[in-house]
Amino acid sequence: MRPMKRDMVAIIGVGLIGGSIGLALRRRQLAGRVVGIGRSRDSLETARRIGAVDEITTDVAKGVAGADLVVVCTPVGRIVEHVRLAAEHCREGALITDAGSTKAQIVRGLRRFSQKNPPRGVRFVGSHPLAGSERSGPAEAQADLFVDHVVVVTPLRSTPAGDIAEVREFWESLGARTVTMSPSQHDRALAATSHVPHLVAAALSASVPEAYRELAAGGLRDTTRIAAGDPELWRQIFSTNRRDVLRSLQRFQKTLRTFQQALRSDQDGRLAKLLAKGKKHRDALGN
Amino acid sequence: MRPMKRDMVAIIGVGLIGGSIGLALRRRQLAGRVVGIGRSRDSLETARRIGAVDEITTDVAKGVAGADLVVVCTPVGRIVEHVRLAAEHCREGALITDAGSTKAQIVRGLRRFSQKNPPRGVRFVGSHPLAGSERSGPAEAQADLFVDHVVVVTPLRSTPAGDIAEVREFWESLGARTVTMSPSQHDRALAATSHVPHLVAAALSASVPEAYRELAAGGLRDTTRIAAGDPELWRQIFSTNRRDVLRSLQRFQKTLRTFQQALRSDQDGRLAKLLAKGKKHRDALGN
Repeated sequence: MRPMKRDMVAIIGVGLIGGSIGLALRRRQLAGRVVGIGRSRDSLETARRIGAVDEITTDVAKGVAGADLVVVCTPVGRIVEHVRLAAEHCREGALITDAGSTKAQIVRGLRRFSQKNPPRGVRFVGSHPLAGSERSGPAEAQADLFVDHVVVVTPLRSTPAGDIAEVREFWESLGARTVTMSPSQHDRALAATSHVPHLVAAALSASVPEAYRELAAGGLRDTTRIAAGDPELWRQIFSTNRRDVLRSLQRFQKTLRTFQQALRSDQDGRLAKLLAKGKKHRDALGN
Repeated sequence: MRPMKRDMVAIIGVGLIGGSIGLALRRRQLAGRVVGIGRSRDSLETARRIGAVDEITTDVAKGVAGADLVVVCTPVGRIVEHVRLAAEHCREGALITDAGSTKAQIVRGLRRFSQKNPPRGVRFVGSHPLAGSERSGPAEAQADLFVDHVVVVTPLRSTPAGDIAEVREFWESLGARTVTMSPSQHDRALAATSHVPHLVAAALSASVPEAYRELAAGGLRDTTRIAAGDPELWRQIFSTNRRDVLRSLQRFQKTLRTFQQALRSDQDGRLAKLLAKGKKHRDALGN
């Protein structure tokens, strides 16, 4: 299928994700023009300089005017208000999606745009591209960031099938593979695969005494790498997915206590089994 | 200072570490010949093929005969017996060191070789190069594995200063930076910087439900990478450093509970502070 070409795409939030979307759209010639919208002049100018966007503005209402696709890439705590604002000012019948790391709270807050006959015909379908890293900002953007990466698309039951297909087609046109599930399924899964790993990395990083830092090897570096991510972005992720994170954290703590018990009681066989299970699961993840 | 050239170096255990030592010695022309000793014919032959060693044998006594330096790179549970065996058969007055990830138990077991007038004049000083990874085997060996990496040298109080200097000089001749501390200091520090991170990675890897694997992003991959390490090697590491690992694990669990409490009671400010601390510590580690 030949990917749809948009007249105008507006990207609200031109960091690593927003900047990479702009780069991919322009390299693949999927948009007549791409407008970058943000609060920071510096980020906007970087985004323009690297070729992620054609035009820049700090005014959301002005920036989305005429857009037939709006992608909201701001921190999760701001997404609902940005989608609402965009929905008032974009082209009638436009499609809006986002790139937020939690979905239930956001998608529920935008329910009116996930049904037949939404206001001004503007449709919203939530998304989450699994393609971030501990880095941030448009200078880190890459045109192929989404290639072969999963993007989770999270419709409500009321979302028209055509809107879901259109959002999937958008991400697939950037090279991604899409997976569709409900917002709450998404949040439960990502608590385990992303939010708790982040919490664990941050706790590990914070708990290593500074005096031992010189003796940090590759293992500690890998294990704590994501702890370098933006604390405020992550605070918002945790705040909007508290219950699932707490549940998933308990599962991790339980496994950790099993290790602790095996070690405390010097049960070598049990310890070996647990380590083998950790390796088996890790090997299945791939590089 | 011009590095000392050895007549003959014997390496017992030609995996990632032993193989890399051999490659480095030969590339830097620091040994007349390098003999690789191991149990597995396959590994020995790989080590010879990649140029890590000149000669190979499965017989420790025969392999170390004539060696003026022996480096024992076997799993921690075997090091004491291999050093003792090497000490009987190597050249009189030779120097022996190891590459074990735990030190107190090993160094204490070899006390007689860490004093003036040891048997046959053969001296032992423990070492731990912080340069491993989740990979293993001689095929993963790299000649520059130790360059700019730390090697911890762990003498006893009875170890003659000249022996310590000689071991440090050996590692530095491979490009490493050496740090000297007591075996128990080493084990305490490494419990925090290596052993607990491994346990955490393994527990995290084991606790993520298999059904969610498709939704694993880069964060989980980084955080659990070392869990792919050899379970049997790591079981031996944990078994020989139980008390320090348990103590360090408790410190981690305490920090994790602080996160949990902040999340449970919806204390956003406290959560933000903890995440910021994790980031600050991680940033200080470097890449």
